[in-house]
Amino acid sequence: MTITTQEDLSRTIEDALRRRFSERSVAAAEYGDEFATLWRLAADHVLGGKLIRPRLLLDVHRALTPGSSAQGAEVAIELAADIELLHFAFLLHDDVIDGDLIRRHRPNLIGSLAGIEGDHAAATDADLHWARSGAILMGDLLLSSAILGFSRAAVSAGTRVRLLDLLEHVVLETVAGEHTDVGLSDGVIRPDLQRILAMTAYKTATYSFALPLRAAAILADAAPAVESSMVEIGRHLGLAYQLQDDHLSVFGDHAVHGKDAHADLRSGKETAIIAYARMTSEWSSIEPRFGQGDLLPDDAARIRQLLIRCGAESFIRSLVDDQLTAVHEALENGDGTSGIPEAARLAIVAVARSIEGRRR
Amino acid sequence: MTITTQEDLSRTIEDALRRRFSERSVAAAEYGDEFATLWRLAADHVLGGKLIRPRLLLDVHRALTPGSSAQGAEVAIELAADIELLHFAFLLHDDVIDGDLIRRHRPNLIGSLAGIEGDHAAATDADLHWARSGAILMGDLLLSSAILGFSRAAVSAGTRVRLLDLLEHVVLETVAGEHTDVGLSDGVIRPDLQRILAMTAYKTATYSFALPLRAAAILADAAPAVESSMVEIGRHLGLAYQLQDDHLSVFGDHAVHGKDAHADLRSGKETAIIAYARMTSEWSSIEPRFGQGDLLPDDAARIRQLLIRCGAESFIRSLVDDQLTAVHEALENGDGTSGIPEAARLAIVAVARSIEGRRR
Repeated sequence: MTITTQEDLSRTIEDALRRRFSERSVAAAEYGDEFATLWRLAADHVLGGKLIRPRLLLDVHRALTPGSSAQGAEVAIELAADIELLHFAFLLHDDVIDGDLIRRHRPNLIGSLAGIEGDHAAATDADLHWARSGAILMGDLLLSSAILGFSRAAVSAGTRVRLLDLLEHVVLETVAGEHTDVGLSDGVIRPDLQRILAMTAYKTATYSFALPLRAAAILADAAPAVESSMVEIGRHLGLAYQLQDDHLSVFGDHAVHGKDAHADLRSGKETAIIAYARMTSEWSSIEPRFGQGDLLPDDAARIRQLLIRCGAESFIRSLVDDQLTAVHEALENGDGTSGIPEAARLAIVAVARSIEGRRR
Repeated sequence: MTITTQEDLSRTIEDALRRRFSERSVAAAEYGDEFATLWRLAADHVLGGKLIRPRLLLDVHRALTPGSSAQGAEVAIELAADIELLHFAFLLHDDVIDGDLIRRHRPNLIGSLAGIEGDHAAATDADLHWARSGAILMGDLLLSSAILGFSRAAVSAGTRVRLLDLLEHVVLETVAGEHTDVGLSDGVIRPDLQRILAMTAYKTATYSFALPLRAAAILADAAPAVESSMVEIGRHLGLAYQLQDDHLSVFGDHAVHGKDAHADLRSGKETAIIAYARMTSEWSSIEPRFGQGDLLPDDAARIRQLLIRCGAESFIRSLVDDQLTAVHEALENGDGTSGIPEAARLAIVAVARSIEGRRR
C-alpha cells in the first residue's frame, strides 16, 4: 500500500478504526440494543478525531523505513489505530472525572448518551449516571482493545517485548499524570509551576507524542539512540502542544478552536498560565473570579487582561517557543548525531511547525 | 514448586500479587506522594480478597496436569494473579458506578481514599471526587496490568492466541453485563427474569468462573471438548454463586457475610429475587419500600417476609439448586464424555459444594 497525501493517510487510519468497530459491532449487538447503541455512538465519536497521534506514528514510520514492505506498513497502521483507541479511552475517563459534556461545539460521547443538545441543563441526574457509566465501561473496552492490539501485532518476539514494555510505561505515566491533574483541581496537590509542567508531560506528552514516535522507531527497528531521542522529542512536542492548548483556551478565538469558551477559567483549571500568575501581584485581583462556575464574559475578559498585564500570557508563549527550540536541538543533537534520518527529521519538524501556528 | 494445601495455594497467589505491586511501587513513587499512596492502598485492598478466581484456576490446572513442570506451574500462578487484578479492576469501576464505599464491614478503596471510617457522611463531595477519580485510574492501571500479564505469559504462540482471544471475549462480555446491570438500576432496561439471568451470567459468571476454568484448560493444552465443557460449567457455577450472593444479601446474616445490611433492598437492586416478586400479587406491598435510600430495619424485615410469602425466596433457592445440578450434569455430560479427568472433576465439585453451603 502506498500512502501519498495527508488526506490518504487520514483515510487509511479511519478505515482501520472503522474495521475495528464493525468487526465487533456484531458481537456487541448480541448483548442488547442499549449496548449496541453505546458501541455505535462510540464509533461515531472516535471517527470524528483529528488523528494527530496515529498520523505522527505513520509519518515517522514511513520516513524511517523508506523501502518498507506492505506487511510492515500494515502493522504500523494497526498500531496507529490502537494508539487512537487508547487516546479515546483516556479522553472518556477524563471527561467522566472532569464532568465534561461538550467537545468542539458538540456533545461528547457522554453528552450524546445523556441526550443533551448543547444544553447541559436538559440532562437529569439519572441520564448523566447512565451516560457516565457507559463512558467508564466503553473506556475499559477501548483500553483493553488497544493493549490487545499491541499484544497481537505481527512482529518478532523481541519487537513485541519492546512494544509491550513501552505501552506499560506509557499507561502508568499517563495515569500518574491524570491523577496529579485531578489532585491539582481538587486542591489536594499544591499548584506550582514545576509540578504542573511535570504533570503535563506525563499526562499528555508521553502517550500523545512520545508513544507514537517510539513505536515508529521500534517498528522500524531503529537504533536505541534513535528511540532515546524520540523520548526527548516527544516530551518537548507534547509540552509545546499542551501549553499552546492552554493558551488557546484562555486567549484564543473560541469560534475557531471550538472549545467551550472560558471553560478553563470557569472550572479553575491549574495550568502553567495560572501557576505563573499566582506568583505575581495581579493574582489578588484574578483570584476572586478564577474558578467561578457562573463566570460572565466580562469577568473572563477582565481575567484575560490581568493575565496579559502580569506577564503570564507572554511567559507561556515563551515556554512554547522554548519547547519547540528544544525539539530542533534534540533533532540535531548538537552535532547532528541524533541518528534520526533526514526524512524523519523533516516529518517531525512539520509537526513542530503545525503546533507553532496552531489556532485550533 | 509443590503446592499441597489450600493455605499454601492462597499464600502462593498472595506472594505473586505482592510481587506485582512491589515491582511497580518504586516506579509509582517517582510520580509523587499522592500516587504512591494510591498504589499502596490498592495493594492493601487487593491482598484482602478471598482469591476465589485464582484458586479455581490453580486447582483445576493442577488437576489437569498431574506431572506438570515447575515452569508450567509458574505460568499458571502468574495468570491466576492477573485474573485477580482483572477482578479488582472491575470491582473498582463497579464501586464508582454504584457509589459504594463499603465492602465486608470495611471501607473499600474509594472509602479509604476518601478517609471515611465506616461513616459515609464524613466524606465531603471533594473527598469523594478525589477518591472516585483515583479508583477510575487505578482500575485502568490494573486492567492494563492484567491484559499485559496475559500478553507476556511464557507460552507457545498458539497458546497465547487462545488466551488473548479468551480474554478479549471475557472483557467484552463482562462490560456488556455491567452495562445491562446499570441499565436495569437506572430504569433504562425493563427488569424481567430472563434479562436479569443473562446479565448475571455475563457480568459475573464469565470472568469469575468460565475465565479461570478455560484458562486452566488452555494452559494444560486440554482437548477443545474440555474447554467447551468449561464454558458451560463456568456459567452454571457463576449463576449459582451470584444467585446465592443475592439471596445472602437479603436473607442472610449480615454479621456473618459482612455486606452492608439491606444494601440491595435500599439501593433497589434488580435481582432475580425481585424479578420473581414483581410477577406476584405481593409486589404492590413491596414496591413502596423497595429502593428507599432511608429504608429502616423494620421495613427491611417486612420486605423479607413478603419475599418469602410470595415464593421469591424459595424460587431463588431452587434456581441455585438447578444451576448446581447443571454443573454436575455438565461434568458427567450424560454419559461421562465431558473429557474432564477425574481429578479436575473433583476440584470443580468441591467448588460447587462450597457455593451450596455458602454463608458469607
